[in-house]
Amino acid sequence: MPTAKKEKLSKHFGTWYRKTLIDAGIADYRYPLKGCGVWMPYGFKIRKYGLQILRNLLDETGHEEVLFPLLIPETSLQKEAAHVKSFEAECFWITRGGLNPLDIKLALRPTSETVMGPMLRLWIRSHADLPLKLYQVVNVFRYETKTTRPLIRVREVSTFKEAHTSHATFEDSEAQIKEATEVYKSFFDELGVPYRVSRRPEWDKFAGAVYTDGFDTIMPDGRTLQFGTVHNLGQNFSKAFDITYETVSGEREHIWQTCYGISERWVAAVLSVHGDDNGAVLPPKIAPIQTVIIPIPYKEKMENINKTCTKIGEKLKTTGIRVEVDLREELTPGSKFYDWELKGVPIRIEIGPRDVKRNEVVVVRRDTFEKVSVKQDALVKYVQSLMDKMFKEMRQKAWKWMETRIHKANSVNEVKQLLKKRAGIVEVAWCGETECGLKLEEEINGTVLGIPQDMKEKVSGKCVVCGKKAKNIVRVAMAY
Amino acid sequence: MPTAKKEKLSKHFGTWYRKTLIDAGIADYRYPLKGCGVWMPYGFKIRKYGLQILRNLLDETGHEEVLFPLLIPETSLQKEAAHVKSFEAECFWITRGGLNPLDIKLALRPTSETVMGPMLRLWIRSHADLPLKLYQVVNVFRYETKTTRPLIRVREVSTFKEAHTSHATFEDSEAQIKEATEVYKSFFDELGVPYRVSRRPEWDKFAGAVYTDGFDTIMPDGRTLQFGTVHNLGQNFSKAFDITYETVSGEREHIWQTCYGISERWVAAVLSVHGDDNGAVLPPKIAPIQTVIIPIPYKEKMENINKTCTKIGEKLKTTGIRVEVDLREELTPGSKFYDWELKGVPIRIEIGPRDVKRNEVVVVRRDTFEKVSVKQDALVKYVQSLMDKMFKEMRQKAWKWMETRIHKANSVNEVKQLLKKRAGIVEVAWCGETECGLKLEEEINGTVLGIPQDMKEKVSGKCVVCGKKAKNIVRVAMAY
Repeated sequence: MPTAKKEKLSKHFGTWYRKTLIDAGIADYRYPLKGCGVWMPYGFKIRKYGLQILRNLLDETGHEEVLFPLLIPETSLQKEAAHVKSFEAECFWITRGGLNPLDIKLALRPTSETVMGPMLRLWIRSHADLPLKLYQVVNVFRYETKTTRPLIRVREVSTFKEAHTSHATFEDSEAQIKEATEVYKSFFDELGVPYRVSRRPEWDKFAGAVYTDGFDTIMPDGRTLQFGTVHNLGQNFSKAFDITYETVSGEREHIWQTCYGISERWVAAVLSVHGDDNGAVLPPKIAPIQTVIIPIPYKEKMENINKTCTKIGEKLKTTGIRVEVDLREELTPGSKFYDWELKGVPIRIEIGPRDVKRNEVVVVRRDTFEKVSVKQDALVKYVQSLMDKMFKEMRQKAWKWMETRIHKANSVNEVKQLLKKRAGIVEVAWCGETECGLKLEEEINGTVLGIPQDMKEKVSGKCVVCGKKAKNIVRVAMAY
Repeated sequence: MPTAKKEKLSKHFGTWYRKTLIDAGIADYRYPLKGCGVWMPYGFKIRKYGLQILRNLLDETGHEEVLFPLLIPETSLQKEAAHVKSFEAECFWITRGGLNPLDIKLALRPTSETVMGPMLRLWIRSHADLPLKLYQVVNVFRYETKTTRPLIRVREVSTFKEAHTSHATFEDSEAQIKEATEVYKSFFDELGVPYRVSRRPEWDKFAGAVYTDGFDTIMPDGRTLQFGTVHNLGQNFSKAFDITYETVSGEREHIWQTCYGISERWVAAVLSVHGDDNGAVLPPKIAPIQTVIIPIPYKEKMENINKTCTKIGEKLKTTGIRVEVDLREELTPGSKFYDWELKGVPIRIEIGPRDVKRNEVVVVRRDTFEKVSVKQDALVKYVQSLMDKMFKEMRQKAWKWMETRIHKANSVNEVKQLLKKRAGIVEVAWCGETECGLKLEEEINGTVLGIPQDMKEKVSGKCVVCGKKAKNIVRVAMAY
């Protein structure tokens, strides 16, 4: 970020991140099992308001919410060959029910294609049943052996929004990929988190997919975070589970499928992209408390000041603004400021004796700390428009910052230098061959994010690895 | 139920129940793993609206929603002796992560006392942190070996609302039990489902609790369904997990805890208690569609009729009523009636050519099938007040019916005769001894529900088993 506060954060990002999660009451990963954590009450509300935005976007585009089982019999998981190959070594496996061994091992879902397969087979009969667009918000599990990180690399992904769609034709599934991409863009836009969309290379696509597009943002430490993926599954799973429909002309055809997912990483992204050295800075739409009102004590005049705080709080509440009036007597205004800044409350209202006298309040923005005196009569409108303005500026700032972290390079060495400086994303020319891609990853000790899906520029020049004519621009980064 | 329709239902209740769940699009348990099922889109919405009522009741009484992990290390589960003894034979156990055996087995939570213990220990420091009232809505698991039944006896309880509270004194925990009981009563009242509250006998209390109160309703086949439980845990878990707080005078004391849970059985209860031979009859508050509008075709006048349907649909929608306008051309009105009756839509509006001419519509109640012509201008108000009236009458009817199914008996033989006739609940005098209670269960081949918590009547006479002076009235039944 351009501000000094943010530059400081970027240097101790890991510490800042863990500390902010616990101290702001968002998530606590000190549970006695690696990679499993708790959504605390305040964090749960952030999650709730964010999911509400996502659910609305999905509902408006004809998706229907459902809930499927957690447990997958090994025999189901095995049906799609590429899928089981990738996932069997990453699943948690149940082998015992009570005191007895099970005949068939059960996996905790790592994702739900093989859970939905048998049911889609029962439900889908004819072309009239298509498209069928379902989604659920569930926990999924990966037996993660690497170092875990709260909300980012975990064993229990507590909040996986996974959509699964079924279509009559490949063209329909392609149109669905476009819709899904737009839904995700809208969601991230509503959070003010910037992103790039890249088509993942062959070796990094979802196991069982025809192709995978990934959404990445850049974290304060210069590493990228994948926080949304969209997959075209073709007929891979419909053939494995024999999911067919009757066409208009009476033949049976296998359905075409897509799926797309977003985990709780969006919370990690929101906190990291907007946060500063004082803690979280929440976009008003997902802030559990949008405005906090704090009395500034002065000698014996507290009663009157507190009354004004309560009265103004009530007035704001009736307009639907989420307000907290902090009348705790044992704390100084300074320590209250500290608390609410840490929690990222977008707007602080301070009311002292002079404000009461003048029918004013002092309004402070969490992101810029800008202070303005506002007449009490004009406050409701002021707060509402300030929330809009603040959010727009937060989003703009975040996009600007990300764009300064996207570079071009003409050689592998140049990429290495940029990534060493935590530069963000680097775009290079690539021949498109897997061999060169894997070699690139090895040399830079980083990740090929893939081919830009949101760029008009055409590639020119030669592959930075082999020197042959380049086919694509490709993005690389140090990734979480 | 007093109606003929209902008498018929009670005789083929099991078939009716499974068929209604699938055919109405509520839940599908044909998943290839016993006791695991899917919430379909329509059922998911019923679940959502119901949970919203429950969440509101909890939020209004100072409970905070959270989300804890699914997995419990065996070492945690073992901390409370009675608890592990009861649950270890009922848990699903994970013994493998990926391809490797785990050092410490992991249980899928059967309930979350031992999940929360270690975190409460970190969070609770002083009396100022108490009371702490948390709840979550999660899936829990039991390795069920008996015959399973959708939403009632399952292996994955998909929708467990479990509240866990921490208090400074036993008195506070007792007050919390009262609050919890009131919250649950309000919830069931909002669903129109009648209940009795009984203190479970010692041998049937929650493993680790001091005592357990259970909510039971009577299903159409005369068996009772436990659909809510409230437990006082005393200090059993706080001692096991060493959860202490600093008192006002500076000493450390173990906290006092309660917990209370409601699973998806409330959906089973709503469907069964209000349903009839035509399918579900949903209370308007939880109905995904509250009013369906169906055109009654007449020669070439369809265009005009459809237009009126759409216009009236829009008008109702703007007032917040959930409306579906069913303009499907391939179906007759009769088959549309069948569909929406099955799904339990509370109000049907029929519009034919004569109605269009007279600016009227025909309004039909789902519960009584009563038909009324209503002027279009008066429709919004009419529908709103009809929903209220209908719900009140549904609730009243359900309570009345249940009360006719609660009997008194003076001998074990009389109990047996009543239960053989599927009579519902039978109340008898009991000496209070476990031996007599267990003997009673054996002789009647039924269940002791426990001692009434909602009855003013005092016990008199002698224990129906041993003939000694009775200490309590006790309820018995055939239970699900």
